[in-house]
Amino acid sequence: MKSFILALCQNRPSYDIQQNLKRVFEMLNKAARKGAELIVLPEIFYYPYEIEKLRDQTDKDNQILNLLCEWAGTNKKYLCTGSFVEKRSDALYNTAYLIDPEGTIILKYSKSHLFDVELPNLKVQESAVFTKGDTIDVADCELGKIGILICYDIRFPEMARLLGRRGAEIILVPAAFNTVTGPAHWKITFRSRAVENQCFVAAVSPARNRRSSYRAYGHSLIIDPWGRALAEAGTGEEIVFARLDPKVLIDTRVKLPLLRHRRDDLYKLTDKP
Amino acid sequence: MKSFILALCQNRPSYDIQQNLKRVFEMLNKAARKGAELIVLPEIFYYPYEIEKLRDQTDKDNQILNLLCEWAGTNKKYLCTGSFVEKRSDALYNTAYLIDPEGTIILKYSKSHLFDVELPNLKVQESAVFTKGDTIDVADCELGKIGILICYDIRFPEMARLLGRRGAEIILVPAAFNTVTGPAHWKITFRSRAVENQCFVAAVSPARNRRSSYRAYGHSLIIDPWGRALAEAGTGEEIVFARLDPKVLIDTRVKLPLLRHRRDDLYKLTDKP
Repeated sequence: MKSFILALCQNRPSYDIQQNLKRVFEMLNKAARKGAELIVLPEIFYYPYEIEKLRDQTDKDNQILNLLCEWAGTNKKYLCTGSFVEKRSDALYNTAYLIDPEGTIILKYSKSHLFDVELPNLKVQESAVFTKGDTIDVADCELGKIGILICYDIRFPEMARLLGRRGAEIILVPAAFNTVTGPAHWKITFRSRAVENQCFVAAVSPARNRRSSYRAYGHSLIIDPWGRALAEAGTGEEIVFARLDPKVLIDTRVKLPLLRHRRDDLYKLTDKP
Repeated sequence: MKSFILALCQNRPSYDIQQNLKRVFEMLNKAARKGAELIVLPEIFYYPYEIEKLRDQTDKDNQILNLLCEWAGTNKKYLCTGSFVEKRSDALYNTAYLIDPEGTIILKYSKSHLFDVELPNLKVQESAVFTKGDTIDVADCELGKIGILICYDIRFPEMARLLGRRGAEIILVPAAFNTVTGPAHWKITFRSRAVENQCFVAAVSPARNRRSSYRAYGHSLIIDPWGRALAEAGTGEEIVFARLDPKVLIDTRVKLPLLRHRRDDLYKLTDKP
């Protein structure tokens, strides 16, 4: 990987998609002006994360996705779109893309674990809307080897580990934890994935919208391979920046060679069994 | 599992083994008097963790182990011995035992990952002394399903996951993190293993000994399945106690069914590949 500035746009989606897009492009332009080479948006960045309403929020004819590709190509930036409600052969997926500075999609990832839970005052059933994705991959680009996971996926150490084993140096995680699981698990889970796989991890949440029934946790976070938080947002609209320095990654892996110390003779993790 | 009181004895081993054993039995007696039903000792609880000296610290004829079995049988307690330098077919292993209230060994585990690192001011090469263990198992006893890992093992999420998949409700981890990795990774790593496997996790360190070249981190820790620290020691000699309540485990697994949401169709983790 190379040294570069990463920016996370913690935008606050309302029910007005056109207004949200206007705001997102303002934030992207600002992040670009400040020197970010890779910018990441949150899970379902263009609409409040209210699962029962997402069925109607597909990105028809990839209109929004095409705008983002155009923005990336024009501004010569890498852009991780955060996620869309994607319609594919009559099923809906929660899908994120990584776009390169030519405006070309170089990685597509659909959320593999669906959040079906009953927490105090919060019942969510993603499987009523979404179908599970079934691919895990890493893009090898000029910035480094980049993988994408989405929100709930991060709780399953197998996922980040499979990306780590494919050489991931940076894992981008559009996400929307809530105000129950966020304070309890957000920071330790993302930090632990960075520490155990010795890579950079970026967790990108929407800002909290008090008018929505779903209260996103916020606290977008950039973690280095030693587990340090390089930047952390509050709960409002905010862009957080950090320089990702490959020396930290190399130094961590030399000092504490966790990836080499795995016991391939004792356990085996494979995908598509 | 049943509801019971767990105690961790964070003793401070010196170079005088007889003196150390005297202190350990005092602490065990105290923990028993206070109602603990399971008591856990740290990694190499009877000698300072100076790797180059451990070759000479095998427990000859299981003398110390037999004393601990006798203590457990007499006091009708479960006891996890922390670990010994065990000689087995001309190799040395870092081995821990779980003893039941009859004084019988019901689980034996040898450290699977050896700590070979070069940290600032701290070079450790465990593989110069120890051979890696190669078994992973869970004891199903009156208290619940109990697994053991040792120190560095906890950094490899595959290990706790394999115990979790075997039904572990409680994972006991005799350990001796140091003052570099301890502040950086001790608490988040143990908390994350508890959260992702939705089980109780106990991390048991020796107290810090300023006369030893190896400065143990201390901070013995009991975590519940939601990731809360139920008890945490400082750096000195101390016994920490917590009641482990199966309701918390069941409630966590019902609210957030992580173990059911694993994607066995997308990835597979096996041991002894």
